[in-house]
Amino acid sequence: MAVHPEPLDDLSKINGITFAVGYAGIRKKPLADVVLIALPATATTAAVFTRNAFAAAPVQVAKAHLRETHLAAQAPRFLLINAGCANAGTGETGIADALALCQALADTFALPASTVLPFSTGVIGERLPAAFPTYLPLLINRLGEDDLKTAAAAIMTTDTFPKAYEEKLELPGKTIVIQGIAKGAGMIHPNMATMLSFIFTNAALPTTQLHALWQQAVAQSFHCMSIDGDTSTNDAAVCVASGEVALNDEEIALFANALNKLSQRLAKAIVRDGEGATKFVTLALRGGRDAAECRQVAATIATSPLVKTALFASDPNWGRLLAAIGRAGLEDLAIEKISIYINGVEIVRHGARAESYQESAGVVAFAASEITIAIDLGRGEACLEYWTCDFSYDYVRINAEYRT
Amino acid sequence: MAVHPEPLDDLSKINGITFAVGYAGIRKKPLADVVLIALPATATTAAVFTRNAFAAAPVQVAKAHLRETHLAAQAPRFLLINAGCANAGTGETGIADALALCQALADTFALPASTVLPFSTGVIGERLPAAFPTYLPLLINRLGEDDLKTAAAAIMTTDTFPKAYEEKLELPGKTIVIQGIAKGAGMIHPNMATMLSFIFTNAALPTTQLHALWQQAVAQSFHCMSIDGDTSTNDAAVCVASGEVALNDEEIALFANALNKLSQRLAKAIVRDGEGATKFVTLALRGGRDAAECRQVAATIATSPLVKTALFASDPNWGRLLAAIGRAGLEDLAIEKISIYINGVEIVRHGARAESYQESAGVVAFAASEITIAIDLGRGEACLEYWTCDFSYDYVRINAEYRT
Repeated sequence: MAVHPEPLDDLSKINGITFAVGYAGIRKKPLADVVLIALPATATTAAVFTRNAFAAAPVQVAKAHLRETHLAAQAPRFLLINAGCANAGTGETGIADALALCQALADTFALPASTVLPFSTGVIGERLPAAFPTYLPLLINRLGEDDLKTAAAAIMTTDTFPKAYEEKLELPGKTIVIQGIAKGAGMIHPNMATMLSFIFTNAALPTTQLHALWQQAVAQSFHCMSIDGDTSTNDAAVCVASGEVALNDEEIALFANALNKLSQRLAKAIVRDGEGATKFVTLALRGGRDAAECRQVAATIATSPLVKTALFASDPNWGRLLAAIGRAGLEDLAIEKISIYINGVEIVRHGARAESYQESAGVVAFAASEITIAIDLGRGEACLEYWTCDFSYDYVRINAEYRT
Repeated sequence: MAVHPEPLDDLSKINGITFAVGYAGIRKKPLADVVLIALPATATTAAVFTRNAFAAAPVQVAKAHLRETHLAAQAPRFLLINAGCANAGTGETGIADALALCQALADTFALPASTVLPFSTGVIGERLPAAFPTYLPLLINRLGEDDLKTAAAAIMTTDTFPKAYEEKLELPGKTIVIQGIAKGAGMIHPNMATMLSFIFTNAALPTTQLHALWQQAVAQSFHCMSIDGDTSTNDAAVCVASGEVALNDEEIALFANALNKLSQRLAKAIVRDGEGATKFVTLALRGGRDAAECRQVAATIATSPLVKTALFASDPNWGRLLAAIGRAGLEDLAIEKISIYINGVEIVRHGARAESYQESAGVVAFAASEITIAIDLGRGEACLEYWTCDFSYDYVRINAEYRT
């Protein structure tokens, strides 16, 4: 059901980063469910995690390990990712399970357990299989045999296509690669969702600088999308810089742009693969007092079941858009300053139906599978793009049948 | 599709309040679409309106008229309600249309236009039919021919049954009647939703006292329900006291209880009639620091498409409940203090799967069409009941097909 997904890019190889993919018996079907990624000692890593209070065991452990390695001036050396089981809602035993995995892996390389960052996605409330650690030696042996593209497929849950893209910066005397994978599909909402994303670059960037770049990229990509408004216990977005190629200040600005672009491509790919989605919708907000209120309006529209079912039905029911904007909670909202265009058709002017608007034009605009809803709030200079999808019978079917 | 609705009560007649119901050509199908209610000069009226910034023209006019009559120490004398057209998103012309209706009606009785309170529900973005005012004389002639039960049917939109209930207080030497009607079904969410409710009593209560009683009744009823999280442009809940029977302080306390009870019965009836609903769900929150945070957690659960599709599927997917509680935004939430029971089955203890929990018991609990989810937040003394329903294929169908 994915809406016009971008085809996968060819991915370059980044020196020092190796991949192993395997089946550890976590999924019911015998499909790859575990990914091990080894990072060089020169790498720096930045990560953004879910803000859900029920953060899963791996999220808690990965956060603690990132802190520990940072304090010890060490580099995280392994990302260990599994699909099929979220290891969330599992209490102390879940944390012990995640820690044991990190310890077993690190022991093999005589490294501290804190150099391993674990990530899980899948069903909530079940423990990881007891046999998982015994599978690690096989995975370690495979390191270097697999690649990022295979990893993209192994982390899928309800995704219908793997998401792997790359940006290349050709700079004087050097080539910077930024490549990444993501999984998503359901329970996607800012701050964050059942999404995982791992981005890798051959650039050399100190951890604090990488973290700042990563945070602003996430704010403009993964925090600008909603499939169903739910927020998962397991989300993480990770950016690893291998430490190979140094960048000057000017080049860092170009790097930041490319990183934003890649993150947005991955975020849009997640929305295009939204559970049951038949339409890809861009909410183009402008005229807000700040980005936060643009995001607030966009999120209210993007989580309105009434708007989303109207989009599914290709019904130009712009009244539901007005109602959503009106309940978004903006202070002193002057509705007579609001205008709305849908795929270029002026629908609302001065807060009411535009005189030029013809229902027939609205029907055409809403029938498209790619819809841009441009909203001018008429009260400031801020703007923001936000991506969402419609709400179909299939969304209900997928979520009634699938045990997250 | 309604979930076990309570049968309608027999309704008493309250002196001085008369009803007229008719078809003014607003609905496409020839079903009653307009209700006129005449109130005695002794009546007091309290009302709570939507907080949506795109409040419909009738909401703006009714609010202004209530203020004007209050300042002029006059009583509102007419409620004029129509279904089929919300007169929302109609700008200045919509306000002019609503005012013209009030003026035409008031002129017939040589009263100021401010004594008429207009209410509309139905499609957003379309004007009321130009011929509506010409229908008023017929309606005025019918006053006294119809009753509250007929009115309940005339204000329905996607409702599948009319909602009309009554509470009676037998006090020494007097009988107090409190009776009311409501419509709802979709776009129902606190503060408020596509709902209208009109409650009438033969009690005599000063406006300010009635307003206070009404506000607390609404806080425990219509503000404790969600069908889809959307909030409409047109909602209003109105309480009219005819001024016939005086009450002492002790009796007012009994009156307040009965008013709460009636409001809750009407609120639950709206949720039982939720669009596409197959389950009626009571969220029984306790252990919160205050009612507001109980409401916050309940609203997050009640608007989670993942929780609602799991309820539809009778899937005991309690992980989605945890995820919803975790993202509700409560400060310093200690997840290890949280416990959850579903229809008496302990599912979560100390923030993780209860050891006694058997999936088979969960399946039975989730298969019921009446489900109580009891959640103890373990951090205070506050408690709150909140009502919601599941999210089915039919919700999508109804909202993809119906033009609100």
